[in-house]
Amino acid sequence: MRESDLSIGRARRSFTRGPAAWVLPALVVLLGVAPAAEAATRDVWVAAVPRTWNAVPNARDAIHGTRFDAAQTTFPTVVYKRYAKDWKRPFRGGIPGPLIRARVGDQLRIHFKNLDTLHGQAHSMHFHGVEYRPSSDGIWLPLHSGKGGNVKPGQHFTYRLTAGPGSAGVWPYHDHSTSMEESIAGGMFGAVSIAGPRERRADREYVVAFAPWHGFQTINGRAFVGNTPVFESRVGESVQWDVIAMGDEFHTFHVHGHRWRTDGGTPEDTRGLGPAESFRVRWEEDAPGTWLYHCHVETHMAQGMIGLYRVRP
Amino acid sequence: MRESDLSIGRARRSFTRGPAAWVLPALVVLLGVAPAAEAATRDVWVAAVPRTWNAVPNARDAIHGTRFDAAQTTFPTVVYKRYAKDWKRPFRGGIPGPLIRARVGDQLRIHFKNLDTLHGQAHSMHFHGVEYRPSSDGIWLPLHSGKGGNVKPGQHFTYRLTAGPGSAGVWPYHDHSTSMEESIAGGMFGAVSIAGPRERRADREYVVAFAPWHGFQTINGRAFVGNTPVFESRVGESVQWDVIAMGDEFHTFHVHGHRWRTDGGTPEDTRGLGPAESFRVRWEEDAPGTWLYHCHVETHMAQGMIGLYRVRP
Amino acid sequence: MRESDLSIGRARRSFTRGPAAWVLPALVVLLGVAPAAEAATRDVWVAAVPRTWNAVPNARDAIHGTRFDAAQTTFPTVVYKRYAKDWKRPFRGGIPGPLIRARVGDQLRIHFKNLDTLHGQAHSMHFHGVEYRPSSDGIWLPLHSGKGGNVKPGQHFTYRLTAGPGSAGVWPYHDHSTSMEESIAGGMFGAVSIAGPRERRADREYVVAFAPWHGFQTINGRAFVGNTPVFESRVGESVQWDVIAMGDEFHTFHVHGHRWRTDGGTPEDTRGLGPAESFRVRWEEDAPGTWLYHCHVETHMAQGMIGLYRVRP
Repeated sequence: MRESDLSIGRARRSFTRGPAAWVLPALVVLLGVAPAAEAATRDVWVAAVPRTWNAVPNARDAIHGTRFDAAQTTFPTVVYKRYAKDWKRPFRGGIPGPLIRARVGDQLRIHFKNLDTLHGQAHSMHFHGVEYRPSSDGIWLPLHSGKGGNVKPGQHFTYRLTAGPGSAGVWPYHDHSTSMEESIAGGMFGAVSIAGPRERRADREYVVAFAPWHGFQTINGRAFVGNTPVFESRVGESVQWDVIAMGDEFHTFHVHGHRWRTDGGTPEDTRGLGPAESFRVRWEEDAPGTWLYHCHVETHMAQGMIGLYRVRP
Repeated sequence: MRESDLSIGRARRSFTRGPAAWVLPALVVLLGVAPAAEAATRDVWVAAVPRTWNAVPNARDAIHGTRFDAAQTTFPTVVYKRYAKDWKRPFRGGIPGPLIRARVGDQLRIHFKNLDTLHGQAHSMHFHGVEYRPSSDGIWLPLHSGKGGNVKPGQHFTYRLTAGPGSAGVWPYHDHSTSMEESIAGGMFGAVSIAGPRERRADREYVVAFAPWHGFQTINGRAFVGNTPVFESRVGESVQWDVIAMGDEFHTFHVHGHRWRTDGGTPEDTRGLGPAESFRVRWEEDAPGTWLYHCHVETHMAQGMIGLYRVRP
Repeated sequence: MRESDLSIGRARRSFTRGPAAWVLPALVVLLGVAPAAEAATRDVWVAAVPRTWNAVPNARDAIHGTRFDAAQTTFPTVVYKRYAKDWKRPFRGGIPGPLIRARVGDQLRIHFKNLDTLHGQAHSMHFHGVEYRPSSDGIWLPLHSGKGGNVKPGQHFTYRLTAGPGSAGVWPYHDHSTSMEESIAGGMFGAVSIAGPRERRADREYVVAFAPWHGFQTINGRAFVGNTPVFESRVGESVQWDVIAMGDEFHTFHVHGHRWRTDGGTPEDTRGLGPAESFRVRWEEDAPGTWLYHCHVETHMAQGMIGLYRVRP
């Protein structure tokens, strides 16, 4: 069952599909898009699970004409995977992990289970942007941290979070346990997307997660046009780009043929961000065509951090 | 004929000259500084041409006392070069390429010709900040891009751009063809400077382009005090710094003895930027003296990314 | 005599002490916290002095369980050290150098003496954020700079600075003499903290200085939880984080369980900065517990750039 099959209403259109193998839809946990902005308690089930991941499924870099062998681009790893209520049914796990959506005022209970049978390591979930007590911080720190900071294989933990008044926007989450360096490098990160109390959701919501992966520079775990997400919209729609970064490097997010403004009102078409930084930009779409979006660090672009954005007239 | 000979009116004073070989004036395409803010169609002629470029013409790093041999600092490369209307007369081409100036509301037609007889490579121009159709995007992308994305030697293409309401500020342009990595490293980039519809131009407009070049860290293609631009002003004038970066690295722009504010009102005297990011800061000059401006990344400063700013009383 | 013994009034509480050797209080030059915001002339005495510095006094990385030999973490270096009025009495010098506090409108006279008997090098002080004439710029530049830019061993110089209307906030200062690269790497930097003309100081003021040190990534000259500063506060207090960076690298400052806003109003919990960039964030404390603060560049965190923040109920 595909994650996106669950999508309903306006938000559905955000997770589109290109002609061939070009599309990798962002995984979504649709936590409700209530027409009225009523605070709710939202439960999410997520496990750390082994998965073999190929960053370059079509085996090529279309722009440079390079071809890859699957052995160069495919590795076993551990990822976050969503499950239906009460662990009844798994969805596809991948990179990034499930998108966790909420609205300011909501309570979140993230039920996490460690099913890492690949490395047998402890794992955790540490969330940016939301409010929580230290017990839900998801960090491992000798003498201080509790169970949630280092969930052993076979164990589980529930993180209790609040989307507070300062939580609107997009934020990363990631492993912060004893294995965090290896786990994040393997793809154990995702995004939390929080709308303002009365904010109208955009027609299209895209997640762009910049991170390195086995020598590639990836967007949502994939490298090179043809593998990275193809985002789609139509003229007249509101589009929202939720950008996060993980790892050691700094990036500059650029979309061709479009501009947005800083929160101080200055126009820009390229914005830098470093590890665990995140930002959200929006515009009303008025530029039909096929466009590139990419990290503008030139070697990152050459190592795969580039994708397509298609706007229908 | 020097580019700056074309400069007229107030803006002329921006392109000044120090006592000796210290000055490298930014090249300027003066696209009109109409007293009334009337939208116009502006034509610019630019070619990719071979040029031998010396990043350290005076053969020394004045601060560290290092001397260089011309063979260490001089390399053949391809740069953008401006021509007079209808290709009648060449101006000096260099690094950065010609400054393209416009005002919000203007239409721009950039007539580009590839005269690369050095490498015989395809080239293009990709512009940040302005509006255009995909055909004027200047990118090479298999199956999608048109002629303008990969202009072959001997061919030409006209890019049609609009300075829209979100285009005010300074933006980079650069090669985005199949040769972009090599071409940008060789100096194929420049700046677009766009004034608001009724904005009064500053008395002084400086372009600072940070980029690596054959192991040096350069400002406008030059390394070390004595080679980088010497910007000049007088107390009481409004001065504008238009800063862009190209390449792989991040920089922090610092001017000694001066401060400015973010668009949110916070004072700063150092601002970071990564590849293809750009920003404009302004102040009313009140601090006479000879000052340094530089990238504050220490090894970049040591590798040449530093220059002088002279304020007369 | 400890620097913090001088602290008086509200600000005192900012420089707290953990149970064991966990605490390294930031050094403070308390330049007056006048209840009325009257402009003043403030004199500070600072010398460059040799000191042996251990970045990992407890000899371990508590999170990774690594142990170090003192020979790996201890090196002779030159640091800024404060003295009482007219050089009467030394305080402890260290990394960062003394915190210089003032208010917009104040005049500062920084009396600097070079007592470097370790390397016998020239040194200087270059201040960000404040106003001064070129003679107080503290830079060494052949043909241009004066005595203050390269103070020889045994010599002294007085820098005259003004906290102007655009000086509110936190700023770095550092050596900018001929020895600057080696001196900054050895710890010759500090912070200037300037309050607005009628601004009420925060209950707690923390300085976080990110810099590399002999292969470690340090906060205020120390690496790893247990060595880096433990900042303390109480629910209901206003807390202020003054963050600066020196060196070559870019960092992302993150505090667990807390958020703040950009000057444009956007919430964030992680902010990037590069060399000589600096920023100040504040919040009213409402989240009791023991939290981590760290640079979120993963290898920097692993190399020591992480510490504890304790909030009592």
